[in-house]
Amino acid sequence: MTTVGILGGGQLARMLALSGAPLGLRFLVLDSAADACAGQFAPMVVGDYTDQAALDEFASKIDVATFDFENVPAESAHWLAERRPVFPSPRALAVAQDRLAEKTLFRELDIPVPDFAAIDTRAALDQAIATIGTPCILKTRRLGYDGKGQFRIKTPADADAAWAALGPQADKVGLILEGFVRFERELSVVAVRGRDGEFRAWPITENWHVDGVLSASLAPARTDEALAATAISYARKLAEALDYVGVFALELFCRDGVLLANELAPRVHNSGHWTIEGSETSQFQNHLRAVLGLPLGDTRMLGVTCMLNWIGAMPDAGPVLSEAGGHWHDYGKSSREGRKVGHATLRADSAGELAQALQRVGERLGRQEQVAPVIERLA
Amino acid sequence: MTTVGILGGGQLARMLALSGAPLGLRFLVLDSAADACAGQFAPMVVGDYTDQAALDEFASKIDVATFDFENVPAESAHWLAERRPVFPSPRALAVAQDRLAEKTLFRELDIPVPDFAAIDTRAALDQAIATIGTPCILKTRRLGYDGKGQFRIKTPADADAAWAALGPQADKVGLILEGFVRFERELSVVAVRGRDGEFRAWPITENWHVDGVLSASLAPARTDEALAATAISYARKLAEALDYVGVFALELFCRDGVLLANELAPRVHNSGHWTIEGSETSQFQNHLRAVLGLPLGDTRMLGVTCMLNWIGAMPDAGPVLSEAGGHWHDYGKSSREGRKVGHATLRADSAGELAQALQRVGERLGRQEQVAPVIERLA
Repeated sequence: MTTVGILGGGQLARMLALSGAPLGLRFLVLDSAADACAGQFAPMVVGDYTDQAALDEFASKIDVATFDFENVPAESAHWLAERRPVFPSPRALAVAQDRLAEKTLFRELDIPVPDFAAIDTRAALDQAIATIGTPCILKTRRLGYDGKGQFRIKTPADADAAWAALGPQADKVGLILEGFVRFERELSVVAVRGRDGEFRAWPITENWHVDGVLSASLAPARTDEALAATAISYARKLAEALDYVGVFALELFCRDGVLLANELAPRVHNSGHWTIEGSETSQFQNHLRAVLGLPLGDTRMLGVTCMLNWIGAMPDAGPVLSEAGGHWHDYGKSSREGRKVGHATLRADSAGELAQALQRVGERLGRQEQVAPVIERLA
Repeated sequence: MTTVGILGGGQLARMLALSGAPLGLRFLVLDSAADACAGQFAPMVVGDYTDQAALDEFASKIDVATFDFENVPAESAHWLAERRPVFPSPRALAVAQDRLAEKTLFRELDIPVPDFAAIDTRAALDQAIATIGTPCILKTRRLGYDGKGQFRIKTPADADAAWAALGPQADKVGLILEGFVRFERELSVVAVRGRDGEFRAWPITENWHVDGVLSASLAPARTDEALAATAISYARKLAEALDYVGVFALELFCRDGVLLANELAPRVHNSGHWTIEGSETSQFQNHLRAVLGLPLGDTRMLGVTCMLNWIGAMPDAGPVLSEAGGHWHDYGKSSREGRKVGHATLRADSAGELAQALQRVGERLGRQEQVAPVIERLA
């Protein structure tokens, strides 16, 4: 009997546990919130990631550890890695936790990135704005996600406001200025690498964000094969450079047909949720297969899928459940503004059928805006 | 938040909980064994089905109840149904629990059945053997499953031994003598009926048993469409006669191209496990959708599938996980002779590919005998 420990008990941990149960695995979740939604289907240790007693108990009861949350403190990840196998490794986690380290690695691997500069002082910010140009975005190097910890600079005159908002964090988490990319598309590669180095990627996904939070994903992305192959080759280079084990996502911008790397997420990823019904093997099961050294599952698609995120509160399930290819995912969370509480996946045999299903669901739920860009892309 | 209570905590309850989690459901399992495998992923009340304190606690914590085990005592099911909605109804359960009531219903609905007779005395056994002829099978009316509580009578001279084996149970659970059917195929219909009467069936399945226990299932069964339609029409008649709500299986024999009803299983069924990966909606999720009054999911197939049961102990997972369409289901049980501990499902786009995958898996696991009849059928 193998027990997998998961640091973080949100919906990713929950879906990992549900997907790993058929492998005969047991799970233990570490989260500071006693009502973390993964706890509905897996035993928990309630405690902070820096709570030594909680970490001791967690480590003593598991065989291998992985993450639902990438911002686990590096010291905690290292402490755990000295006691139990941890995948992905603390090193890979550290790179992905730090926008500067991540973008520096992209550049080293000849993966195109938007211009960027480390910002330590107010003067450095002015200098970097002059070099990179506007618009640009000031971001925290660490602990940012879903658009949090970011300030958009439209003209050099915004530098004061940006520094007022994020400058106080320069010492603690570091800052980075990134050129703003006027992209046509946001794409992601969700991929997995095994303990033996085997690498597999799912077909690439196109994503739409609203207020910095993922709203919809379409897979496969409607791009030409060469672009998809390039995106996957970047993901592979990254995984190999980091000796990465498990599932990860590489987010990319596409501008004038050229890809620019945006971010590496060292975990199962929201833009890969469609793999539960849309692929022979889900990202959740393949992550666990990788972490355990089992053979990786096939990442081929079954049809065409669109994932719609539910933010804040769950809508009525009826319109989705009434669709032949409609699948519902309620994370068992309470409602809260801006919170990811669930998603739906619509699967179809053709792009035309998927567009029709999206149209019906959008109308019945009064969410035409959410589905519109996906329907437009499918046309 | 809706909590579904499940009477019985085996692999069916476990797979119901895993499949129902995405609907935002919570589960509570009642089982007398504290280590029942569903308890690894759902909270439990530990107690016997007749333990009033356990039933009280169970009823107080759930919104609706269903079954993992069809032989829950009728009084317990009735007691529960007076307090909470219970699906399927205690009446449907009672019919399915009693081979005589079940076969009488088949006959009333013009569903062909093998000859049968109720047996109360030793003299009645002799008389029934004379009428029905040999070979035939003496069975308990209640509490039999997986070939247990059965005695095969090859010649009238076996009557003494049959009566010695099962006669003592005549008063308690009743006995029935059934004509032995020299069938060419065993088929099953797995179907679902909603609270609103909507009926859906998955494509019919062919099954192979070894020592009375299911060994392999192939879906869709390789039969002509008329036979499949007839089988599904029988299932529909039964479900409507019983005002059935939820998933059930109708097991059938096929002899000389004619179908004979064997048994009604009032629950999700081993011969429907392939629906997890092989259908748009699994039997587990559709059972829950039915029980909760949600729209039923699509029962169409995704390709061709074969399910292999693992009895006694789990084999090595590697050969199955290495197949592109290989899916593993370890129920988290300890090994025990004759116990269903897990299954695998192989999915493929064509019969030829499925046969090749079965060949490889059979060879690598040294289980050529288990896969041989399925490969032969696919040829």
